[in-house]
Amino acid sequence: MPAMRANRQWILKTRPSGPVTEDCFEWREVETRAPGDGEVLIRNLMLSFDPTQRGWMSEDTYVPKVPLGEVMRAGSVGQVVESRKDGIEAGDLVQGAFGWQDYTTTDGGGFMPMSKLPRGTPLNLAMGVLGITGLTAYFGTLEIGLPQAGETFVVSGAAGATGSVAGMIAKIKGCRVVGIAGGEKKCAWIKSEGGFDEAIDYKSESVSGRLRELCPDGIDIYFDNVGGQILNQALARIAPNARIILCGAISGYESAELPPGPANYFNLVLKHGRMEGFLVLDYLSKFREGIAQLAEWHGEGKLKQLEDIQEGLENAPRTFMRLFSGANMGKQLLKIADPA
Amino acid sequence: MPAMRANRQWILKTRPSGPVTEDCFEWREVETRAPGDGEVLIRNLMLSFDPTQRGWMSEDTYVPKVPLGEVMRAGSVGQVVESRKDGIEAGDLVQGAFGWQDYTTTDGGGFMPMSKLPRGTPLNLAMGVLGITGLTAYFGTLEIGLPQAGETFVVSGAAGATGSVAGMIAKIKGCRVVGIAGGEKKCAWIKSEGGFDEAIDYKSESVSGRLRELCPDGIDIYFDNVGGQILNQALARIAPNARIILCGAISGYESAELPPGPANYFNLVLKHGRMEGFLVLDYLSKFREGIAQLAEWHGEGKLKQLEDIQEGLENAPRTFMRLFSGANMGKQLLKIADPA
Repeated sequence: MPAMRANRQWILKTRPSGPVTEDCFEWREVETRAPGDGEVLIRNLMLSFDPTQRGWMSEDTYVPKVPLGEVMRAGSVGQVVESRKDGIEAGDLVQGAFGWQDYTTTDGGGFMPMSKLPRGTPLNLAMGVLGITGLTAYFGTLEIGLPQAGETFVVSGAAGATGSVAGMIAKIKGCRVVGIAGGEKKCAWIKSEGGFDEAIDYKSESVSGRLRELCPDGIDIYFDNVGGQILNQALARIAPNARIILCGAISGYESAELPPGPANYFNLVLKHGRMEGFLVLDYLSKFREGIAQLAEWHGEGKLKQLEDIQEGLENAPRTFMRLFSGANMGKQLLKIADPA
Repeated sequence: MPAMRANRQWILKTRPSGPVTEDCFEWREVETRAPGDGEVLIRNLMLSFDPTQRGWMSEDTYVPKVPLGEVMRAGSVGQVVESRKDGIEAGDLVQGAFGWQDYTTTDGGGFMPMSKLPRGTPLNLAMGVLGITGLTAYFGTLEIGLPQAGETFVVSGAAGATGSVAGMIAKIKGCRVVGIAGGEKKCAWIKSEGGFDEAIDYKSESVSGRLRELCPDGIDIYFDNVGGQILNQALARIAPNARIILCGAISGYESAELPPGPANYFNLVLKHGRMEGFLVLDYLSKFREGIAQLAEWHGEGKLKQLEDIQEGLENAPRTFMRLFSGANMGKQLLKIADPA
């Protein structure tokens, strides 16, 4: 019998009705359960923070909500400590939804099934441009956006994990890319690091005015991560046959009530526009192809990982809250431990 | 020289900021201008009334607004009285946007170019199922809706000109069709005359409750003519991979301010739904093919003309207002004169 291990966990204590606070979570320490037949014991190394996790806290959507009293769910990368499962060995790096805790004992199933990572994959990339985040940007931009060289591509949440990758992919496809982000620093950064052509600072500039100025022929493709007023302002400026990619709506995730819809949606009629939503899991059968393409672009230096890495499991709630205050630049990660 | 003819006209006097009233128009009588080289003189026989004309009164959209002091624009069918244009002769039936007046003198151009109708085309059909209305329902339903047999198709404004035809086309394609209309009489009528499977009376029933009951597996295709709360309620009930066809938003056309957008649009993300708008003119190159198919279905008795024909040019404003009070059942027409 291996020695018992202490497992530190963040439990979902109460469901937020408005903004997420630290009080929503409770810290506890329990003993790690030893793996049974067909199970593995995993040491969590790094956690991924994504706006969609806000939905997991409060309602059943495309996945059931996290039960109260259970570990907060999150995508993560870990390392196998002990395996009683065929095909997986101690030392292997694995990815799955292992949650806000040091250890997990699992048969590998669940909402985000455990997958073995190729040897040598950097943990941060596995959860960034070469992971779910990269795939989200990839399928949204290519399958729904159908970008053509010379088109004007606008993305909101442009300094966020998905938005920054979406903009870089649109650049690879030959679009003129305009990013909308909050603050001068983020705006400078998406141009210098992300290679965006233009940036709009929604905190200090008129988004409508700047869109008019920067997109004189209208917006051909709009990749929306924020919803709310910015989605509405983008709809006011669409070009004929525009495609609106609905990826998220972070501006509304912390509202207790459903925020107003985009009043300018009727422009879709006048411009023959199309607005389409998606979840990355809709493209599960194409994940392998997507990862391969993203890895190729990353290898060629066309796609960069823009990231914000915090440290320490004790900081999980605070790190999560960075998404909603807009503190993060690029992919928000939390390092818990180094691989053995 | 032909004798001068008195031409009775309805002029756009003021732009409405809310509901259309008779005061928006002014009646006047002028002399008809004789046709010059390349022009024809047309006797207007029947006028078409469509919700989109409300937009023509107040703002530049896909067509410039009607100038103040000019004849109110409307689609119509007329008969050539005198021709100085090649290829067109006195007696020919023609279709175009001749407006709210007895006569027009034109070279045949304009927003809706003049087209010669095949001999024997009934005037009402030319402006109903075999005209712009039928084509609008046809392209929206088929090109955007992509209906498959067995799917659930919901249409609002179901007792209106476009909605009733859209529902009948969806039936032809094997869908289960649910219509939303105002009042018991309209609901009974879309079932008995239009062959709809089910009807929801938004005036006396809970649209949300009835959609839940009638579409237990969700809505695959929703053809929207009304916007507002009904669009929002339909979005709450979409099935995976739903298509929302945005055709109109009559509920909002008489608002002085832009009505709220559909707050449930985020369901497009969760269900991978697509919402797409169109104008019938987007499909101009396929009009001939569409008319041929509609005429075939009409000949086979699969497609009926549901119509409301009023009489007398003096009643043009009152007839137009029937659209917004919901008085009309089917295509709203106004007969001005019989063909010679």
